[in-house]
Amino acid sequence: MKQYLQHNPWKIIEDSFHPEFNEITESVFSLGNGRMGQRGSFEETYSGKTLQGNYVAGVYYPDKTRVGWWKNGYPEYFAKVLNAANWLGLEISIDGIVVDLHTAKILDFYRELDMKEGFLFRKCKIELANGNIVSIVSKRINSMADDESVAYSFSITAENFSSKDVKIKAFIDGDISNKDSNYGEKFWEEVKTGFGQNSSFVWSKTLKTGFEVYTGQLIKLFVNNQIQDLQAEKIQQVKYTGLNYSISLNQGDELTIQKFAVNLSSENHKVSTFEQKGQDYLNRIAEKGFEQMVKDHSVAWGRKWAINDIIIDGDIAAQQGIRFNIFQLNQTYTGEDERLNIGPKGFTGEKYGGSTYWDTEAYCVPFYLATAPQKVAKNLLIYRWKQLDRAIENAGKLGFSKGAALYPMVTMNGEECHNEWEITFEEIHRNGAIAYAIKDYVDYTGDRKHLVEYGWEVLVGIARFWAQRVNWSEDKQKYVMLGVTGPNEYENNVNNNWYTNYIATWCLKYTLEVYQEILKDFNSEANQKISSTNFTQAEITQFEHIVSNMYFPRDEKRGVYLQQDGFLDKELIPVSGIPAGQRPINQNWSWDRILRSVYIKQADVLQGIYFFEDDFSLEELERNYNFYEPFTVHESSLSPCVHSILAAKLGKEDKSYEFYNRAARLDLDDYNNDTEDGCHITSMAGTWMSIVKGFGGMKVKNNQLHFKPFLPSHWNSYAFKINFRETQLEVNVGKKGTEIKILSGPQIEVKVES
Amino acid sequence: MKQYLQHNPWKIIEDSFHPEFNEITESVFSLGNGRMGQRGSFEETYSGKTLQGNYVAGVYYPDKTRVGWWKNGYPEYFAKVLNAANWLGLEISIDGIVVDLHTAKILDFYRELDMKEGFLFRKCKIELANGNIVSIVSKRINSMADDESVAYSFSITAENFSSKDVKIKAFIDGDISNKDSNYGEKFWEEVKTGFGQNSSFVWSKTLKTGFEVYTGQLIKLFVNNQIQDLQAEKIQQVKYTGLNYSISLNQGDELTIQKFAVNLSSENHKVSTFEQKGQDYLNRIAEKGFEQMVKDHSVAWGRKWAINDIIIDGDIAAQQGIRFNIFQLNQTYTGEDERLNIGPKGFTGEKYGGSTYWDTEAYCVPFYLATAPQKVAKNLLIYRWKQLDRAIENAGKLGFSKGAALYPMVTMNGEECHNEWEITFEEIHRNGAIAYAIKDYVDYTGDRKHLVEYGWEVLVGIARFWAQRVNWSEDKQKYVMLGVTGPNEYENNVNNNWYTNYIATWCLKYTLEVYQEILKDFNSEANQKISSTNFTQAEITQFEHIVSNMYFPRDEKRGVYLQQDGFLDKELIPVSGIPAGQRPINQNWSWDRILRSVYIKQADVLQGIYFFEDDFSLEELERNYNFYEPFTVHESSLSPCVHSILAAKLGKEDKSYEFYNRAARLDLDDYNNDTEDGCHITSMAGTWMSIVKGFGGMKVKNNQLHFKPFLPSHWNSYAFKINFRETQLEVNVGKKGTEIKILSGPQIEVKVES
Repeated sequence: MKQYLQHNPWKIIEDSFHPEFNEITESVFSLGNGRMGQRGSFEETYSGKTLQGNYVAGVYYPDKTRVGWWKNGYPEYFAKVLNAANWLGLEISIDGIVVDLHTAKILDFYRELDMKEGFLFRKCKIELANGNIVSIVSKRINSMADDESVAYSFSITAENFSSKDVKIKAFIDGDISNKDSNYGEKFWEEVKTGFGQNSSFVWSKTLKTGFEVYTGQLIKLFVNNQIQDLQAEKIQQVKYTGLNYSISLNQGDELTIQKFAVNLSSENHKVSTFEQKGQDYLNRIAEKGFEQMVKDHSVAWGRKWAINDIIIDGDIAAQQGIRFNIFQLNQTYTGEDERLNIGPKGFTGEKYGGSTYWDTEAYCVPFYLATAPQKVAKNLLIYRWKQLDRAIENAGKLGFSKGAALYPMVTMNGEECHNEWEITFEEIHRNGAIAYAIKDYVDYTGDRKHLVEYGWEVLVGIARFWAQRVNWSEDKQKYVMLGVTGPNEYENNVNNNWYTNYIATWCLKYTLEVYQEILKDFNSEANQKISSTNFTQAEITQFEHIVSNMYFPRDEKRGVYLQQDGFLDKELIPVSGIPAGQRPINQNWSWDRILRSVYIKQADVLQGIYFFEDDFSLEELERNYNFYEPFTVHESSLSPCVHSILAAKLGKEDKSYEFYNRAARLDLDDYNNDTEDGCHITSMAGTWMSIVKGFGGMKVKNNQLHFKPFLPSHWNSYAFKINFRETQLEVNVGKKGTEIKILSGPQIEVKVES
Repeated sequence: MKQYLQHNPWKIIEDSFHPEFNEITESVFSLGNGRMGQRGSFEETYSGKTLQGNYVAGVYYPDKTRVGWWKNGYPEYFAKVLNAANWLGLEISIDGIVVDLHTAKILDFYRELDMKEGFLFRKCKIELANGNIVSIVSKRINSMADDESVAYSFSITAENFSSKDVKIKAFIDGDISNKDSNYGEKFWEEVKTGFGQNSSFVWSKTLKTGFEVYTGQLIKLFVNNQIQDLQAEKIQQVKYTGLNYSISLNQGDELTIQKFAVNLSSENHKVSTFEQKGQDYLNRIAEKGFEQMVKDHSVAWGRKWAINDIIIDGDIAAQQGIRFNIFQLNQTYTGEDERLNIGPKGFTGEKYGGSTYWDTEAYCVPFYLATAPQKVAKNLLIYRWKQLDRAIENAGKLGFSKGAALYPMVTMNGEECHNEWEITFEEIHRNGAIAYAIKDYVDYTGDRKHLVEYGWEVLVGIARFWAQRVNWSEDKQKYVMLGVTGPNEYENNVNNNWYTNYIATWCLKYTLEVYQEILKDFNSEANQKISSTNFTQAEITQFEHIVSNMYFPRDEKRGVYLQQDGFLDKELIPVSGIPAGQRPINQNWSWDRILRSVYIKQADVLQGIYFFEDDFSLEELERNYNFYEPFTVHESSLSPCVHSILAAKLGKEDKSYEFYNRAARLDLDDYNNDTEDGCHITSMAGTWMSIVKGFGGMKVKNNQLHFKPFLPSHWNSYAFKINFRETQLEVNVGKKGTEIKILSGPQIEVKVES
């Protein structure tokens, strides 16, 4: 755990430079707007530890899979989020010495991420090798108002010198490769480069996938706020353009470089229009000016916060944490483009690849359901509906047939792109979460038509997969499910993972319910859909038989569900018994040791009880929580939030708060020692759930909103806003009780339990 | 299954060219002499499908591991058998047209591997593009008499033309890479190249490991058996030397190129002596002459066959099969160098990497025990003893301590070099086979001193590993072993694999027995060894407790041991129920489908019953055989032989014979569709066991040799020779009974059961 960032309700502040943590800071200070984003690297040259990263939504590359031994069914490619052209490019030299915080002496340093207004700001003073002292002030945005544009203003002041030899090179570098490229290959090739008046562009194309991206820059230079009319020397290289300027500065002069940049993607524009549109776009925003861009951007952020903000009174660390999570979620996904999804690292890093995991359905859908227009969550569901054919194809590769669908563990375009058999082939519970999200969406929105329009086809594909995936055990006289990996990835290839068996059975049950329901409510459309899926009476019988005869491992003595067959053969030593210095175990123990240990990476049985809370009594929850929580190491970012919610439900204040903080500040404090690879975006929705569903106790029952609030005792209050159908409400939980305000829309009855 | 090779008792014959199977033929026709070897590729240019492969014993390269996701404990490198300089190099062109069987029209073709004399022979007639007809006769040996040398004689006859433009390029190409190089890297760099009188050499060095190999060639040319005194043009390139000759041929002339070559390895020579020794060696064998080399080689093979041959009367396919197996085993390992071991592909291919698997102890030791001088098997045991420290280090990487040793799954130098967790970390039963071989060796040879000199240290390290690897299950009130992969690699990460639990328990028991025994028989030396291993009374107590309280999964109803916990949850459909066209399943099914199926790659429970046959009644064997055999797909080369032996024991003649043939002709008939990668060398020892231990029913009980012979009904007889301690005997099993002849050494009492 690292605590070098300052606590502040609206800002993330690094008040002295920590080069040793620079890659972590770059992750945390990432900017994005749903269309693109980039890590919080310095604008200017930095020769120290840095991971430059610029990402354009929807642009990916199928990197040839790298495995030790090939196994049938492996996907040939692992689709990677692509590191794209670096538009930040800036090199400044003074009397031949490059401004570089790695080589200069740092006299003063401050940088902040202002979450309220959505900008990155830096102010620092450095001494160059020749004694020249330079002040730097920079500000950067990834515009929420003009979502294909970014801009920064970068000023240097000559504090103790004059120089006739100040050189500025503003460039776009498209010769970029992914840090995690499997075979060290580059994924981009040049289409064209070119120049305009103080502007230039790099137009590149991805190999294989053929995505094209135009990245353009336009430069304005000021000295002491006076715009300079300078001629740029043009630098043209492969996948690279630069604009060189020379200037003189007197002592005390402030030189400001404003860079306006745009990223146009072939996903959104005809490539034949790239050059014209790009130049027009650059001209338009440059004319608007940096200050106005910042204002428009700030207004856009204001609109987001107005519906999204959560206020915690009495705990700055907790306040900062939740805002950071909401901030990053909004930067990653706006819900405006149904082709996009929520990558695990968003625009903050490229590790893991793929853009879509079960995280979307299990963690993100509830957030967007409650905080965004209904179409946002619906788009996420339609995304999977559109990929149903691929899921059926994917199941086919593994030997399933007759419309059985297995959604991929990781995907960009519907194809599986992960490359470990124990995950790809076995962590099949993801299929259940995709069905679960349909129910979640329909229950929350009341959009029952969705079931017949989109839901049925997805549900029946998933249900068919489960019906083929189980087998009848003569020995147990029950259906069993062999060879799976549950949500707890610290087990592989286990039999009868309780969670997977449970959600599989639920899928079958729910599919049969939906079948009845759509026939009743949307008869003719339903008949058509059902017949187009060739769903038969024999399948109804089969599903019912499985539902009635599924095996669920359970320990009668303790009254707990067993994570899987044989779980009680393990040494039941709680996490507190792991010797100091051996955690996180995934960085210290060999894989086999982890596998045979009792330690749980993330909620597994508890994830099931969380999903299906109404199926279990509080006593059952408590027994299972008390049994499993002590064995849980929470080395998945998705773990603490679920535990926080369940602990809140059980009135375990300390635990609930501890897990909330761990979820909320995971990246800010680098809990799992991996934030340098990027932030854990999808689990941030879980943090939001910890407050709204955990402390707030929100749930929907029979089309009605229920709350069962809980206030951590050292907090004065907390407040959040949610949309429920047509209504927007604010829930304020304080020492004196809970206040619910209807902000807009029709009055609704809300039930508050105590 | 492919059956293009002719049946013959002493030869493998391809009587018309099968370019589509050329890589298979190259594997089968490989030559070797324990020091080096090469695949049976053509000497001259061949632009068709070919895998050139030349291998030098003990020379390897640690290729950087390639995995999808790194897991703690993975070895950083995968040590590969290196494809070395190609000494065969020969290019012949006539009137500008290269002699190449891929582009020429083949008029006549015959090649054979003569196993009795150990040479490769070819005779063919081809028509070149311009109508010129050329006959080729070639003969090649990998000398058993001069084991650093190889030679061939290659003749062409101008059948229907004369030419003034015959060009011959005889070369050594050291610019070689492995087909399975993880990142396409080359592993050799040049040290030096040079020339002598009609000779040249390439001296290369492996990157990282620094092995150096000098490969030299000397050329003699004859026309119509008259030696030609020609000047060679010297071609010198990086890692390459060639000798160019030009000559004229009249119609009917026969041109013969004799190439003499040597491979000197830095493992056996000071590199400073390479050039002098290499040139001297070449001169010596060239002076001896090709015909004399072939004679010496043939005599050396004669000596091998005199002790190794197995004669089967009445079944040519079976006869050819067993001789092919014995031939390849002798080509791979001579037992003269205790630094070497028996790679799974020998000198016939580079797949799999590493030179040492548990195959050595489980399959090869019995063969060498019975057919080679005692020191050969002893050397194999000492090889592991020398690597004990590395095995302790390897266990340490996985979290074990206090002298616990885990021998690697695959190794070159004692370090683990495989790269799948399910194998490396979990297929730990290999440790048991290494202990078992000690008992096997001591029982067979009576060399009880071995136990105190070498055995104890290895046994106690292995026993300590097992004692730490099991854990106490509160639930079962027994010791369990979680997360293993048994011999059946079509299961991963299972709990309580019966075989592994059994052999682990046996190791502990045997270690305690050996402890008592060496204290009794070699008291002072034993005390010293025991104290140097810090073996304590507490460990005795611990070992005893585990031995008395180990859990063994068993189905009481069927009276069979269960391969692992949960085995009976599987769908128990016999192999005959797998739809046609889906076998081998490992080439048709996804990995998860294989894992959750009941299908068994190779003997698992049955391997245990085979190893510890005296612990089980014939009825127990029969019940288990009848239960497991129908589920076994034998997709490991190590499977049929064990089944053949057990079937013989049960008097199941058909099965025993079927499995014998499958073992014996695995590569000749390409049963598993993978011979093109190389032959299955280690399982060839299993073929030998099928006859001697299976049909012959040989075993050692209380220092006495027992036989319980069995004659497949359509065989007239079979005969094999074995060494037992000082005595050499011949066992002849015929229709009229079994005859045992003492060939040399003291008379011994041999028990023959019926």
